Amino acid sequence: MTDKVLVYSRFPKTMMTRFAERFDLLDTAGRPVREVFSSEELSGIRALLTAGGSPLGAEAMDRFPALGAIVCYGTGYDGIDLKAAAARNIAVGHSPGANASSVADIAMTLMLAATRRLLVADAYVKSGDWASSKQSPMMRPQAGMRGRHIGVYGMGEIGRKIAARCAAFESEVGYFSRSRHDVPYQYFPTLEALADWCSVLMIAVRAGAETHHVVNADVLKRLGKDGCVVNIARGSVIDEAALVAALTGNTIAGAGLDVYESEPHKPDALTALSNVVLTPHIGGHTLESHVAMQDCVLANLTAFFAGRPLPHAVKSA
Amino acid sequence: MTDKVLVYSRFPKTMMTRFAERFDLLDTAGRPVREVFSSEELSGIRALLTAGGSPLGAEAMDRFPALGAIVCYGTGYDGIDLKAAAARNIAVGHSPGANASSVADIAMTLMLAATRRLLVADAYVKSGDWASSKQSPMMRPQAGMRGRHIGVYGMGEIGRKIAARCAAFESEVGYFSRSRHDVPYQYFPTLEALADWCSVLMIAVRAGAETHHVVNADVLKRLGKDGCVVNIARGSVIDEAALVAALTGNTIAGAGLDVYESEPHKPDALTALSNVVLTPHIGGHTLESHVAMQDCVLANLTAFFAGRPLPHAVKSA
Repeated sequence: MTDKVLVYSRFPKTMMTRFAERFDLLDTAGRPVREVFSSEELSGIRALLTAGGSPLGAEAMDRFPALGAIVCYGTGYDGIDLKAAAARNIAVGHSPGANASSVADIAMTLMLAATRRLLVADAYVKSGDWASSKQSPMMRPQAGMRGRHIGVYGMGEIGRKIAARCAAFESEVGYFSRSRHDVPYQYFPTLEALADWCSVLMIAVRAGAETHHVVNADVLKRLGKDGCVVNIARGSVIDEAALVAALTGNTIAGAGLDVYESEPHKPDALTALSNVVLTPHIGGHTLESHVAMQDCVLANLTAFFAGRPLPHAVKSA
Repeated sequence: MTDKVLVYSRFPKTMMTRFAERFDLLDTAGRPVREVFSSEELSGIRALLTAGGSPLGAEAMDRFPALGAIVCYGTGYDGIDLKAAAARNIAVGHSPGANASSVADIAMTLMLAATRRLLVADAYVKSGDWASSKQSPMMRPQAGMRGRHIGVYGMGEIGRKIAARCAAFESEVGYFSRSRHDVPYQYFPTLEALADWCSVLMIAVRAGAETHHVVNADVLKRLGKDGCVVNIARGSVIDEAALVAALTGNTIAGAGLDVYESEPHKPDALTALSNVVLTPHIGGHTLESHVAMQDCVLANLTAFFAGRPLPHAVKSA
């Protein structure tokens, strides 16, 4: 009998094909489990595949008495109640670093697009405004990357890759993190000190209760009038209402976001602003990072069903 | 009496302010000289400030018998007939390297935006399609930068800066140039060989008669189905009709252009394509590169009027 795996989040079908070769997938496609599967089908479920950002607490875990492993697709696991999992002897795995390059790249894409006003520029050409020499205040030259102070918030694998890329753009890189790392960038002891120093803030911190809304009105104001904030971590890190106010009031110049407080993000005050670039949480979505993340999922599930520890376990779990 | 300088191209007024402090500017704002200034006003013009891409041949030079210096704003000087200038003992200056970082940055911006389909992704969020879970074939994961083969055509200052940035993205970098350079990237002896090897072609070659339309249908086809072409050099290097055909027929996947065969570029078949990102020749348009280019112009004009050789002279002139 093939080992059963409950697919608890919505993933593209093409992504599931590879897992289905090895496991018997019960795919909820993101719908409530009980609407999709009978108790009989769910009986004896020992492993669950989910998106790390989707809430998965004690109550949900208790619905599956035989549950022994929660495997997150991707780096994040902020939706998982790790204490509840530990109390139930449920191992939690993820895909550490597998998508780091791809996520760092989208951070750079968003930063460059926001600071060089790419969307405005593209529309200026395509609308015919350039051809008709129409004046556009938004097209005025802005500060570029050379010598610019870029602040990286969080110095995990993604933060380090962002910092290395920024350095290649001849920018100065500083960072704030809970602890100092062995990296060749200036360390700032607080987020506020980093924000005072930099004009571009790249958010690459692991999300959790302690980072909820830490990028607030005060931090944004410290970035200055040509400030730009880029978030590829989790939407909860930014106070989105404060961000909209800072952008609307020209307290900062622009933003690039791949993640949002609520996903999928609906059209609202944020989407209506011309100086923001928005992507639909596609940081990890490159062909090579999907393969690397799938490798981690397969390794975690294979080890679990063979009775071995997860090779890519969440460290603090 | 202040030295007179004829401003032969159209530049933003704010840019002219600094020059006007030192020189008596006769600004055509891009209009035909004779429509704007009388023969009397133009008499004795010895120096001319122009955009390097604007045509300036023997006939135009002969209208100013006292002309001794043509100073280009920016790196390029492809519009200037260098032989005609040399025959008339007219020195030609430019701003070598002053905008290289800024131009390399826009090349990276265009490459990342085209390969990660940034415009499509941004529209997917802002339109509400993401919120309503609308399927979009354009949003399928694409190849990212890690391990990707990036070909750089031209290894001048801008080409080297593009290559260094690409290397930081964990890509493999190769290049084609008339001669081999002392750089840590794989050299290809022909553009065709480079195109066979790479999937992203970054055009950073100096434009001229020998590079006219060298990026043609054959070269584009060699990039492959996930191919992407980025041009920040001059529009004349690409056969634009062949590019439109390659994009329309999915011979390649996307393009990012800052320069065009005809500028300013009007809405046409190219602007109508969803897999291209277009900017209005803003490669050098950052605050710091404008200052650096202005420094070169001032140094060239000051030296010329003092009877000294131009410090930033065009080498082959």
